[in-house]
Amino acid sequence: MEVSKRVGSMQFSPIRRFNTFAFEAEAEGKKVYRLNIGQPDVETPECFMEAIRGFDKKVIAYAESGGVTELVDAIIDYNKQYDMHFERNNILITNGGSEALTMIFTALLNPGEEAVIAEPFYTNYNTFCNQVNGKLVPITTKAEDGYAWADRELIEASITENTKAICCISPGNPTGRVLTLDEMKLIGEIAKEHDLWIISDEVYREFAYDGREVTSFGMLEDIADRVVIVDSVSKRFSACGARVGCVMSKNEELMSGILKLAQGRLCCPTLEQVGAAALYRLDKSYYDEAKAEYEGRRNAAYEELSQIPGIVCQKPGGAFYLTCKLPVEDAEDFLMFLLKEFDDNGETVMFAPAAGFYATPGLGKNEMRIAYVLNQESMRRGAELIKLGIEAYKAAGNK
Amino acid sequence: MEVSKRVGSMQFSPIRRFNTFAFEAEAEGKKVYRLNIGQPDVETPECFMEAIRGFDKKVIAYAESGGVTELVDAIIDYNKQYDMHFERNNILITNGGSEALTMIFTALLNPGEEAVIAEPFYTNYNTFCNQVNGKLVPITTKAEDGYAWADRELIEASITENTKAICCISPGNPTGRVLTLDEMKLIGEIAKEHDLWIISDEVYREFAYDGREVTSFGMLEDIADRVVIVDSVSKRFSACGARVGCVMSKNEELMSGILKLAQGRLCCPTLEQVGAAALYRLDKSYYDEAKAEYEGRRNAAYEELSQIPGIVCQKPGGAFYLTCKLPVEDAEDFLMFLLKEFDDNGETVMFAPAAGFYATPGLGKNEMRIAYVLNQESMRRGAELIKLGIEAYKAAGNK
Repeated sequence: MEVSKRVGSMQFSPIRRFNTFAFEAEAEGKKVYRLNIGQPDVETPECFMEAIRGFDKKVIAYAESGGVTELVDAIIDYNKQYDMHFERNNILITNGGSEALTMIFTALLNPGEEAVIAEPFYTNYNTFCNQVNGKLVPITTKAEDGYAWADRELIEASITENTKAICCISPGNPTGRVLTLDEMKLIGEIAKEHDLWIISDEVYREFAYDGREVTSFGMLEDIADRVVIVDSVSKRFSACGARVGCVMSKNEELMSGILKLAQGRLCCPTLEQVGAAALYRLDKSYYDEAKAEYEGRRNAAYEELSQIPGIVCQKPGGAFYLTCKLPVEDAEDFLMFLLKEFDDNGETVMFAPAAGFYATPGLGKNEMRIAYVLNQESMRRGAELIKLGIEAYKAAGNK
Repeated sequence: MEVSKRVGSMQFSPIRRFNTFAFEAEAEGKKVYRLNIGQPDVETPECFMEAIRGFDKKVIAYAESGGVTELVDAIIDYNKQYDMHFERNNILITNGGSEALTMIFTALLNPGEEAVIAEPFYTNYNTFCNQVNGKLVPITTKAEDGYAWADRELIEASITENTKAICCISPGNPTGRVLTLDEMKLIGEIAKEHDLWIISDEVYREFAYDGREVTSFGMLEDIADRVVIVDSVSKRFSACGARVGCVMSKNEELMSGILKLAQGRLCCPTLEQVGAAALYRLDKSYYDEAKAEYEGRRNAAYEELSQIPGIVCQKPGGAFYLTCKLPVEDAEDFLMFLLKEFDDNGETVMFAPAAGFYATPGLGKNEMRIAYVLNQESMRRGAELIKLGIEAYKAAGNK
């Protein structure tokens, strides 16, 4: 009467794992700046709740397994602004980007098969892949290079006979790295040569700063049959709790396999799909405003952090994360110090230790990820607390 | 660049597969009584939408991975009426009963391991199990016996060295079979002797007719460590499109494994959890009314069907399904006849061919499942159309 090996070997979320200590610090009266989780304080556009409040059917009935047509059509139209053209059967609605990724790994990997992915990477990919006994193989990058990975030699070093797919998260979580269209073309070339799928997680698509253009693997028509895109309303529209995402691909066999999985779980909730349709119909100006807001937060966080002696930090180009090297030996130990022993005027700060984002044991031990999801003032204060925390940590004899 | 073997070998839903032909029949002007799918026409209690409309937070933020506390507490209180006592960490909220079952199979079965289940069974169990390369082994039952299966010899004939769990759906889909508490005790004995888990799907719990008592594996304290229960608001509260379910178990190791999976997909949608909490707080009189409604529908459907010459049909004790043998050789061929060639005053009827509910090839070919989800008048007319359809089918020279 044992549980399965796969859940036995899985880890609890390294992002949520330290919540207990944060709650304890708060119970002692400390204020904790929570920079550990990608939960923005930006308000969800009102059209979401308005659409839901207006829902007037008497029976909350099953929706179609592939998603509510109204939402699928809104996503088709949203993509047209980037000159990307999908048909209804190219899009399937999921319970957030998480279910989209779970379904993609289920539909692509046989037990023991591999997908390569640049580390550090969003840690939940481990769960998505382990659930079906697949394996993630890291492409190793460095803080000094801004975690760049669109390099033929680097990628090919990770590809083996078993490799089935290249995973791309751009704009990236946790590094903020944005792939240019030329880099995407190179990755497409490599995928063609090795006959691989490309799994492209584009949930932060519009959050590309410093004048960078929005890029998508959906723009490359010549590899359309091997590309599958993951999208979500969570970050773009600050609607993380709506749990609406989608899978997009022009590969019919893949979409047919994913539809079988979707039928297995019947459908996604109707109400959030109605709300999400309204979100995808928002005017383009919404994205400009949201991007400007996050770019300002990034600037504030980066400006303060990069001045801390010993931090190795390059300005992230997109998403709303920043990963960097700290001048300490063990970021997790430092985090425990911040939550248990440190405060400045009753305030402390919380980040996500980056080791959990690496697949290679030992890597990332002195790195942290912060999410710049709070307003500029809070980001500056959070960075200041990290600076003061490092000083106190060293003064207490820690390395 | 192939898809995985597991999705390649999966089937499209046998319940939804014939929708195309139903749409065609409707396009030709026919009225189709849809008895194929478990989507009741009963109104969702108003408290569900009222609670959601009252939600007033400005940011639709991530909920806790294990579920909103308000809902977990409502489920704890709901269970107390049956003298079953759960703690908060014994309950984890899921995207419908479907995700609950997917998580349970993921947490229990290593690739190649087996779970036994009485056939015919709810076909989506195949998807839940195949996703993690587990295997369902049928316990074979007969229409003549009302699909009874709580029999030591029958169950033990299906258990092998690899067997990890016994799956129980009671009240049952698609047979309507209800396990008595004594039968549950027997299954518990067998599980103890063979060191197996019991996966108990109790989403139709209150729909037990003819004065039958509500039964649950949660009532058996001496096997509490090996029991995991699946629940859902879909059927009980006619809220199929809400997609709110839960896993309940007192086994800490299992719940800890399932929490890891839950963290991987972050959380369930917040709004439906708020609505579902209101549903679980409904007065007991709600269950009595809903049960009386379905019992009336069952009586109407059974009364008409059992009079059709050649039908082998026992009165189902619960849920809202009835599976029976038809006096035709191929139920699927007969269904196509009903949709494409038959009508009575412009009306026809649709059922789910039962072969898709069997794991043993060849079984169930002449059986059908109907869901008594429409009002009594419609159920009577639906049954009449099946009767007239059989006569027309035979008259056209079919066997």
